[in-house]
Amino acid sequence: MKRNKKERKKNVVSSAVVRRLPKYHRYLGHIQDSGIVRVSSQELSDITGCTASQIRQDLNNFGGFGQQGYGYNVDSLREEIGKIIGMDKDYEVILIGAGNIGHSLANYQPFEDSGFHIRAIFDANNKIIGTELAGIPILDVRDLAEYLEGHEVDIAVIAIPQQYAQEVCNTCSEGGVRGIWNFAPIDLDVPEGVVLENVHLEESLSTLIYYMGNPEDFRGAK
Amino acid sequence: MKRNKKERKKNVVSSAVVRRLPKYHRYLGHIQDSGIVRVSSQELSDITGCTASQIRQDLNNFGGFGQQGYGYNVDSLREEIGKIIGMDKDYEVILIGAGNIGHSLANYQPFEDSGFHIRAIFDANNKIIGTELAGIPILDVRDLAEYLEGHEVDIAVIAIPQQYAQEVCNTCSEGGVRGIWNFAPIDLDVPEGVVLENVHLEESLSTLIYYMGNPEDFRGAK
Repeated sequence: MKRNKKERKKNVVSSAVVRRLPKYHRYLGHIQDSGIVRVSSQELSDITGCTASQIRQDLNNFGGFGQQGYGYNVDSLREEIGKIIGMDKDYEVILIGAGNIGHSLANYQPFEDSGFHIRAIFDANNKIIGTELAGIPILDVRDLAEYLEGHEVDIAVIAIPQQYAQEVCNTCSEGGVRGIWNFAPIDLDVPEGVVLENVHLEESLSTLIYYMGNPEDFRGAK
Repeated sequence: MKRNKKERKKNVVSSAVVRRLPKYHRYLGHIQDSGIVRVSSQELSDITGCTASQIRQDLNNFGGFGQQGYGYNVDSLREEIGKIIGMDKDYEVILIGAGNIGHSLANYQPFEDSGFHIRAIFDANNKIIGTELAGIPILDVRDLAEYLEGHEVDIAVIAIPQQYAQEVCNTCSEGGVRGIWNFAPIDLDVPEGVVLENVHLEESLSTLIYYMGNPEDFRGAK
């Protein structure tokens, strides 16, 4: 992946906005599929459940793309949001851990389709090292640092037991990986410049269970 | 699962607090494992990265468990938080979708250990209906409504393509399911009294990618 030289001088975009962008992108895909070419922020609001003013404000963070009284062109808005997110680029990915979650991610076609290319899988289990998973070679996790010296890797997916996760995360950061997608139930420390995103399944399930026992606290899903 | 008759008359607990509870529970488990029996909110703060006053405030939502100058007893605080979340109960679970994500969830032992019992898996693929996955029978999704008439199900995990997810979600709600754990990349509508929690992998990955392109916006992981 090449870094995108941004012209715009911008304020820090809040994480709430960042997390709404993929949602807009997804809904615009549905709208596109149904053959609609133009959409107002009010129509987008009806579909997404965000308010029209929130949508306009969110998009204004990145320059704004609508035209008063005309609305948004669906194709170009979706393309622009995709570019803002970085979906127009390709990413070199490695997966650490060929267990359950690793299996599932290695086989998940939508990721491959969106430029997320898993080039190698690392595991500590001698029985599977040297084999393949979904056509991707499984290598020895003890060779991870060496691999990173010879390969440019954008993203490392960490799907191993928590007790090994920080060490592997450090090896990845030191080896030039700039994005960590963490599935281990642990809060990892990453150095400045490395970006971390967690998928904490246990915490998500716990949240569901809490709300089932306390439905009066539930104000809609995350 | 039996409903817990709560004595406490409480204010609505914000979702930020609800989502911190599993984190506290997890960290207290680590502290327990290292043999520590008493912990101050300051020590908890050092470990969790939340401020001590936030931790005290969060716990005060549920009555508060510490003692000025003494701190918290690790065992009992962890147990209490587990109870608040609802981890002390058992849940009857069905899984809709025996694809990649379904496979991974059916095989994920930590869930079984924490009272989350998957009793049946439903799929539309005739080739696998009648077989088993991780020892759990795979049934025909067309028989889902009938199954729900004869079985009490607490939680349905939805791990099917988005175009079928709302219909299956409706069948579950009508069949008495009170919690939906949704892995399909769609925002589902649930009726009042049914609780929904999403795991949106695509959106998580998009967020990671956005921050990799805009590291100046990154203020720590979710």
